[in-house]
Amino acid sequence: MSIVNRKIVLVSRPTGRPDDSNFRYVEEEVAPLDDGQVLVEVDLLGIDAFIRTTLDEGSFHRGAQIGGVIPALGVGEVLDSRDAGFAKGDKVFGPLSSQTHAVMPAFTLRKLDTNVAPANAWLGALGLTTGLTAYFGIVDVGRVKKGDTVVVSGAAGAVGSMAGQIARLSGADKVIGIAGGSHKTKFLVDELRFDAAIDYRNENVGARLDELAPNGIDVFFDNVGGEILDDVLMRIVEGSRIVICGAISQYEKMDDVRGPRNYLKLAERHATMEGFAVFHFAQHYARGEGQLAEWYRNGDIIMREQIEHGVENFPAVMNMLMTGGHHGKLLLKV
Amino acid sequence: MSIVNRKIVLVSRPTGRPDDSNFRYVEEEVAPLDDGQVLVEVDLLGIDAFIRTTLDEGSFHRGAQIGGVIPALGVGEVLDSRDAGFAKGDKVFGPLSSQTHAVMPAFTLRKLDTNVAPANAWLGALGLTTGLTAYFGIVDVGRVKKGDTVVVSGAAGAVGSMAGQIARLSGADKVIGIAGGSHKTKFLVDELRFDAAIDYRNENVGARLDELAPNGIDVFFDNVGGEILDDVLMRIVEGSRIVICGAISQYEKMDDVRGPRNYLKLAERHATMEGFAVFHFAQHYARGEGQLAEWYRNGDIIMREQIEHGVENFPAVMNMLMTGGHHGKLLLKV
Repeated sequence: MSIVNRKIVLVSRPTGRPDDSNFRYVEEEVAPLDDGQVLVEVDLLGIDAFIRTTLDEGSFHRGAQIGGVIPALGVGEVLDSRDAGFAKGDKVFGPLSSQTHAVMPAFTLRKLDTNVAPANAWLGALGLTTGLTAYFGIVDVGRVKKGDTVVVSGAAGAVGSMAGQIARLSGADKVIGIAGGSHKTKFLVDELRFDAAIDYRNENVGARLDELAPNGIDVFFDNVGGEILDDVLMRIVEGSRIVICGAISQYEKMDDVRGPRNYLKLAERHATMEGFAVFHFAQHYARGEGQLAEWYRNGDIIMREQIEHGVENFPAVMNMLMTGGHHGKLLLKV
Repeated sequence: MSIVNRKIVLVSRPTGRPDDSNFRYVEEEVAPLDDGQVLVEVDLLGIDAFIRTTLDEGSFHRGAQIGGVIPALGVGEVLDSRDAGFAKGDKVFGPLSSQTHAVMPAFTLRKLDTNVAPANAWLGALGLTTGLTAYFGIVDVGRVKKGDTVVVSGAAGAVGSMAGQIARLSGADKVIGIAGGSHKTKFLVDELRFDAAIDYRNENVGARLDELAPNGIDVFFDNVGGEILDDVLMRIVEGSRIVICGAISQYEKMDDVRGPRNYLKLAERHATMEGFAVFHFAQHYARGEGQLAEWYRNGDIIMREQIEHGVENFPAVMNMLMTGGHHGKLLLKV
């Protein structure tokens, strides 16, 4: 059985916005499996913000190699296995990357229970980089409690939209989302039941926060960094928790990041800025997934998805994510 | 009884480094006391970094008024009182400011027990902005525990030198100070028993941290901000606590603060940056003072003092603090 893997590889590291010259489309026959390897036919890839940082030398996240595929989490079906833990037909989740057929070490894969939730939900509402990230950020890092005023940046994105919904389910009194464009702010309020949303492209974020959170901000879940983080820092109160999940505004210039200029407000107001990545909570995944699956089945959380098509469009879909030209969880059906 | 108050008042707000044009020396007869007021003859003033920030409009700390004295904490003796809580001859502590004779509302003063410690110790080892600040920063915010590697910036200053000693007394395995000039680094190691010290003026801070703390930094007590904070952020580990006490490198340009560019390391390594000011721990002062007084009497902590003279030198001594031209706790005998 000869199988052709169609893939996108990195040919040079971008400075700033990636363009076509940084990538190449390649077709290559899949080599026979070694012991402990599993061949997966990739179905869907999650297009996450961390992917951009993997393109840099010595990247913040685990890096892409020149000539190699671009890291991305995905779901797929086992075609062939030389590991006792996996059999043909199993649905699996793992770092399948920018290709149609992935030869994976078995330990990097996880079998999915599609009775708990359909395969796409494992990249969305229950996904590692989406639902679980939002869950640990809001529950364990932000420690959102009854009565809190919670602000989420990048709120229409996959993590942000989950974070806001989980904050509400955790007892927050007011959940305010920040996103770019009125179609997104409308979506946050009308479909995801955020209490309010700020369009950072067309509104003054600081002034709107003053109106919407006159008593200050208890918890900020930040996916964006830059000026928005500084706007929020000006409005923290004693005991506020700033949760640093990401900084998409900075990922295209990681060698010249804008640090939060108002960080001394942390001292003035005895507040905390705590960062995390989902893998820091690896021992607690079962708890997070259990809670998320329950909410998902009860219809308490909504994950909007935007599905693009074709592995050859991987670079273009990644740029769509970076420029905010999408809506909800961005998936690529390869 | 006619008493003349000699004082320094603010005549204009400085931009950057304050100079003589920003201040004026004034002599003025002390007015009769109202009910609830206490007249204090000022003995010693503590010259603290927060003073610089009080000169700015809408300052980070409580501000100085144009035409008014410059805020400073001090100790002195009661000359006259129209409050039942204070009598002539009492030794007191309070925000006595840049003058020889302070008419104070009684509630701003605190009677000192000079049996516990001499008056100068109440501005130093046991002082609010020195010993107590260091105590709460290391014990409550930094949660220093046995085995930790602790780094302190501004380590030869009044807060820093206490922070390092308190870290050691709290079980730290290694205490590393950062200070400017070899006379200061020698002082830290030889007299204060720090394990090591880095001279940021003549050494590469990052490279020296790599040598001295090859397994990373568990707790950083920061008085300085700027590049040193970024150097440390590159070397944090999972669970590190960055304690933001101050940022003397930024106090002369508070409208253009350099934010920590490496703050995303907090997310990569699940670490925390927490700020505080001593007044956030007002309910715990008795605990802190009790512990500090015990250490002080046992000779476990050393507070080096540099005493300058003359209220008219207040601006010059403040500039000495800002440029690091001092050594230990800077006091002004008025």
